[in-house]
Formats: sequence, structure tokens, C-alpha cells
Amino acid sequence: METSWKTASPAVAPDQAAASAAAPATNEEIFAGHLGGKLGVAATRPISDSRELSIAYTPGVAKVSTAIAEDARLAARYTWAHRLVVVVSDGTAVLGLGDIGASASLPVMEGKAVLFKTFGGLDSIPLVLDTTDVDEIVETLVRLRPSFGAVNLEDVAAPRCFELEAKLIDALDCPVMHDDQHGTAIVVLAALRGANQVLGRDLGKQRVVISGAGAAGVACAKILLSAGVGDITVLDSRGIIHVGRDGLTPVKQELAWSTNKAGLTGGLPEAMDGADVFIGLSGATIEETLLKTMADDPIVFALSNPDPEVHPEVAAQYAAVVATGRSDFPNQINNVLAFPGVFRGALDAGARAITDEMKLAAADAIADVAAEELAVDKIVPSALDPRVGPAVAAAVAQAAKDSGVA
Amino acid sequence: METSWKTASPAVAPDQAAASAAAPATNEEIFAGHLGGKLGVAATRPISDSRELSIAYTPGVAKVSTAIAEDARLAARYTWAHRLVVVVSDGTAVLGLGDIGASASLPVMEGKAVLFKTFGGLDSIPLVLDTTDVDEIVETLVRLRPSFGAVNLEDVAAPRCFELEAKLIDALDCPVMHDDQHGTAIVVLAALRGANQVLGRDLGKQRVVISGAGAAGVACAKILLSAGVGDITVLDSRGIIHVGRDGLTPVKQELAWSTNKAGLTGGLPEAMDGADVFIGLSGATIEETLLKTMADDPIVFALSNPDPEVHPEVAAQYAAVVATGRSDFPNQINNVLAFPGVFRGALDAGARAITDEMKLAAADAIADVAAEELAVDKIVPSALDPRVGPAVAAAVAQAAKDSGVA
Repeated sequence: METSWKTASPAVAPDQAAASAAAPATNEEIFAGHLGGKLGVAATRPISDSRELSIAYTPGVAKVSTAIAEDARLAARYTWAHRLVVVVSDGTAVLGLGDIGASASLPVMEGKAVLFKTFGGLDSIPLVLDTTDVDEIVETLVRLRPSFGAVNLEDVAAPRCFELEAKLIDALDCPVMHDDQHGTAIVVLAALRGANQVLGRDLGKQRVVISGAGAAGVACAKILLSAGVGDITVLDSRGIIHVGRDGLTPVKQELAWSTNKAGLTGGLPEAMDGADVFIGLSGATIEETLLKTMADDPIVFALSNPDPEVHPEVAAQYAAVVATGRSDFPNQINNVLAFPGVFRGALDAGARAITDEMKLAAADAIADVAAEELAVDKIVPSALDPRVGPAVAAAVAQAAKDSGVA
Repeated sequence: METSWKTASPAVAPDQAAASAAAPATNEEIFAGHLGGKLGVAATRPISDSRELSIAYTPGVAKVSTAIAEDARLAARYTWAHRLVVVVSDGTAVLGLGDIGASASLPVMEGKAVLFKTFGGLDSIPLVLDTTDVDEIVETLVRLRPSFGAVNLEDVAAPRCFELEAKLIDALDCPVMHDDQHGTAIVVLAALRGANQVLGRDLGKQRVVISGAGAAGVACAKILLSAGVGDITVLDSRGIIHVGRDGLTPVKQELAWSTNKAGLTGGLPEAMDGADVFIGLSGATIEETLLKTMADDPIVFALSNPDPEVHPEVAAQYAAVVATGRSDFPNQINNVLAFPGVFRGALDAGARAITDEMKLAAADAIADVAAEELAVDKIVPSALDPRVGPAVAAAVAQAAKDSGVA
């Protein structure tokens, strides 16, 4: 029952896509593009006569319901739920807009559902919640468990998002992933692999600075550690995270122990001095002078949107490779390279969870697609590259089987 | 932002539909028709280049989310939620199958969503719940309130369904309707209007027997009272409901006071003696001899599925008009004549609730469509008649405005 990829990929080649991106959308176009919402439900088999009605509804449907009541596993075969991704948010950390609430977050969640369909061939619906209580959100999804197949957690503020994701993973026997954490982390790792490959460098010898210890920063640090990066220094708004700092949250305490081998203290000047890689995930501006203190020909990922930590043209004066989160500069680090394929692979494999191995496999698959045309301004594939979703899905499904969750 | 009806109606005329119904579906066809589920999500505006991506998702979507954060009313304009019907069930009273659980109920709820799309042009998703606790179900939907526009409650067992519907109506500022109650009641009233019209009888002078005091029986009694039916006698498994009976639930106590003017006691023989109309909603078999005790040329609605209380060919020997719930006999009483138009009308009008006036208007609209070709074997339109949905929606929307909930 795997959905075909045929209709899932955009019809336009990446080059054309880049060309058409030249004219930015007007406000009028944007609001017109959202009128009435961006999603619709369709019947997979339309009803046009009473015979079709008798199959899709009574009396025919009673046989299917009876069969599932007798063998619960058949729900995966005869309902849409087992492949349905719910995009769940409480609207507390929406894009760069912050805590704008569930209702205002809905256009983003609808957009996410569109991307799941376009790039993963997966059905997806937004469920936005009028509560920010972790246990209430978990309880709500546990009650709704028979209705869906996987949970994409979205735009939930840190540090609550860490507790929420962990509790959901414990409570649900299906793939759960907070995309702002792991989607970003997967693509950052893929991009770093691409940058190192094009520069002929070894990931294990790099010292990486991550500015920002929110959802994305923490997950990036973790996946880079898993991938064998030499050393990592993470900073939050109070400076470098180290074991001697007071008042660290549990997540930051864990980071303090697993990163910062050199025991650095202080702020960005201390962290950036001699660093090989800078990854900005905080929105905090980076002074040009700091770039000069990095190691020779560094790698700079200035990923805040819409305003990167340092303008990519400024960064390019010092760095060998520059990436941003924006579509109007080369090397766009875009989650859409990861999440559609990650969930598609997990669901294709019937995985009960999304493991670290699956995330690493996703990053490798993205890097492998990029490797075919690697250049300093092409360290990751285009966000619209139709090869990426299927490649990620295949790698993630295999990793799910290998790691014993499928 | 009203959805067009153009794609909402089946392409086939009722006559053709009836012809194609001749060959019953095989088990193989039924299961094949449910493989992978019956629903899919589609983007209303597909993404094929990065410009479209920048409109549907970042950075464009931020403007839409910001606008909603500043003016909450804009969510109705720029998200799908305000017109989305959630089909909610706990799986405790599924078709004639009983308490088969949430997961096994899902094919029915998916079928319902297909019918909402086909006959109402409305998007709809199933939300099935792994809890049967009334307060937990209410709490879950209150938390999810920003995600949807209306609640179709489905296949929840009586008497819990009465409490659940009442609490949901109190808790939510949107249309809520338990279709097994009111959808059935609306179509029964429409059919009774049609039968009386074709026989030249006055609704106010009829004595009606309702066998069954579950979801459908109670709602039928209430709507028939509102419509001015002369007198009603309701029976449950213990016999006639009357004010002197012990151990009545609150709902049945209310019925005891509002029905049974003659103060009848006993069982079906006492109730049927001289009655003008029999409405079977319980599955309890009716002996042929009881039909002989009814008034001359009675009306018999034997609505249990798949086995009517009395076979329609037997009933036809005594009754002037016979109806069933089955598509393979004339006069099918099918909820699909009501619920798509009721919700469509309520949402078109922006109604905050579904009032008795709206239900009565829906019944009148169905009866008006039937009146165009009225006959003893055509007291209601075909379930596939494409005129019904729009007619019901228009009447319901007008009634919503007239009754002050829109």
C-alpha cells in the first residue's frame, strides 16, 4: 500500500525553480494563495452511483469494520490512519514570530501538510491545540491515537519542546519527531558533510560553534556529536555552555557534559577564536570582526530567517563555504529536504519510532544526492529536488529495519 | 469562500444509480474499495516552483500568520479549519455492530467524510477516540477547537450520546450534531411529510408509534413533536414509555412527559392498536398480526438495517406507504439526505450552533424536493439526488440567520 511517488514530486527541475524564484511574491499574491486555506480532503474512490455508495458506506463498510474488530492489524491495511501524519502545534514558537497561538499557527501547519504531500507523497492534517500544557498535549494525542500514523511536532517553544517530544515518544507506539529540532539537524549535518567533502576536510577534526541552544541548536549539537564531529561549542543568550555554569536547564546540563571539550567559557569572541565552523541558529548578529578570528577558510552557516546572523555576502569575504536558510542565496538549509522523506521512510517500514540511526541515514542520503553535483555553492540539493524525498525515505526505511524498530 | 457545488454532486442521475445498484458488491470488491483507506489530503494550490513554495510556506506564510495573530477573525478566511467537519466517534455503537472500538469504526468515519465531500462539498476528517469518557471526549475537542469548524458526532452509544452531545454544544461555539440522532430524525420527518402529503393526511392528526428509544428513536420523537404530530407513543425494550414507569433515564423521563397523551401502558400490542404510523428504530421484529391492528391504510417505516422490523413486502400487504433503511427497496430513509446539507448550510451561514429550527428547515427542504415527483413509492428523494444537498444547505443557512445563531 505504498503511495506512488509519481505524483509526489514537483514537475519542475531545480534550475527552472531557481529561475522562477527571481520575482518575489507580493502581499496580494500571498494572501490570495491562502484564501480558504491550502488543504482539501478528497475521496480516493469517488461515489457516483448507489453501488459505489454501498461499497464505501453501508452496508459494505460493515464487513471492513468487522474484519478490523476481529484483527486489529487490518486497520493498517484498510484505513488511511496508519499513513497519516498529524502536524501538531501549540503555536508557541511559530517561525520567527514567537508565541502567536494555535489559530494563527494554522497557515504554517497547513503549509507543512502541503509539503508532506508534495515531497513525501504522504497525507497529513494539522492539529493545533489550545493548550500549552505538555501533559495535556500528550493526553490529547494518546486519546486520538487510532486516528493517525505519525506525529510531526512543530513550532513548540524550547525548552518545553524537549519534554513534550520525549513524553510523546514514550506514550505513542509510532514515529514522533519535532521537526524544528531534528529536521533542521539532519539538513545541517548533510550540509556540513557536503562542505567538508568539497573542501577535502575531515568531520572528526572540526571544531564547530553553534550559536543558539533552542530546539534546533540542541538537536544540531546532538546529531553532530553522533556523526563524530571533533568538538562543539554551544552558546545561548548567556554565552558558552559549560559545566561550571549555574542555572542550566536539564537539556543544557547534558549539553555542557557532552560538548566543549576545551572547557571554554565566555561568549562568542572566545568561542569563535580558531573555530572551523560557525552555525547560527539564534538570530544573534555576528560582527564581521569575529569571522576574522576563525580558522582559515572557515565554514559559515548563518541560518536565521529572514535575517541571517551575518549577511552571506559579508561572510563570503572570509569563509570558504556559506549557507543560509533563505531561498534567494546558494546553499539553502531547508527542512523540507528531510522531513517528508524521514516520515515517508518510517511509515513505509512500519517503524514504531524514529531513531538516531534513521536521522543519520537521512543526512547521509541528502549528502549523497548533493555529492553528484557538489560545489562550494551546492553543498545541499535544491529544496525542490525531486530525487531527495525518495532517497531519504529509502535510507530511513532501511535504517529502521537495521535498528530494529520496524 | 463558499466551496463550489459543481464538483460536489455525483455525476450520475438517480435513475442510472438505481439501475447500477442491481448487482450487489462482492466481498472482494468491498475490501479492494477500502485498501489504503478512502481519504486523501490534497493541496488546493500545488507547489511546483520555489516561488510557489515561498507563498505557501516560508517566508510568505509568516504574513498570513501575523495577520491572524492580529485579528483572529481572519482565521476563517485564510485557513481550512472554519469549514472543516470533524467526524468524531468512540466506536461504541457502530452501524449494527455495537461497541467495536475506535480503530474498527474508522472505515465508517472515512466513508462519512467521503459523503460530506460528495454531497456537501465539505472537507471532513475522522477523529476516533480511544476513550469513552464523556468529559474526556469533550475536553479533547475543546483543546483541538482551533483545528476545525464543526463536529459531526457519530456512532456513540445511547444514553451516553445524549450527555456527550449536550456537553459539546455547551463547550463549543460551532455547529455540533450527533447524526445518528438528528440526521435520522430529519429524514424521518421529511419522509412522514411526504407520506402524509401523498395520502392527503394531516400530520397533526396522526398517532405515531416509535419502537426504539436509543439515539434515533429519541431524536425522532422530539422532532415529530416539534413538527406538530398529533400524538406519539415510544417503546424501548421494556415496553411503552409512560410517566408511571420506574427506573427511566433522564432522557426517557422527559419523553414520558412529552409523549403518550393517552397514557398507554404495556407493549407493542397496546401501542400499535389503532396507530396511524409505525416507525421501527430498534431492530425488534414486528409480527404481521400487529399490522392488522393498526388504523386503516397505515404508514410503516421499518428502518432497522440490514434486517427491517418487518419485511417491506409483508408490510405492503397492510400499509399504504412503506419505507426502509435499505437501498434495494423503495423509499430509503438515508441520513445522507440530511447531514451534508445541514453542515454545509450551517457553515455557509457561519452558524454557532445547529438549532431545532435548522433541523425542521432541513426536513422541509428534503420534503420539498420529494414533492416534485411524489408517489407512494417516492416519498423521499433518492440518496444520490444531487438537488438535495444544495436545497437543504440553503434552507438551513436561512434558518440559522432567522433563528439568530448566524
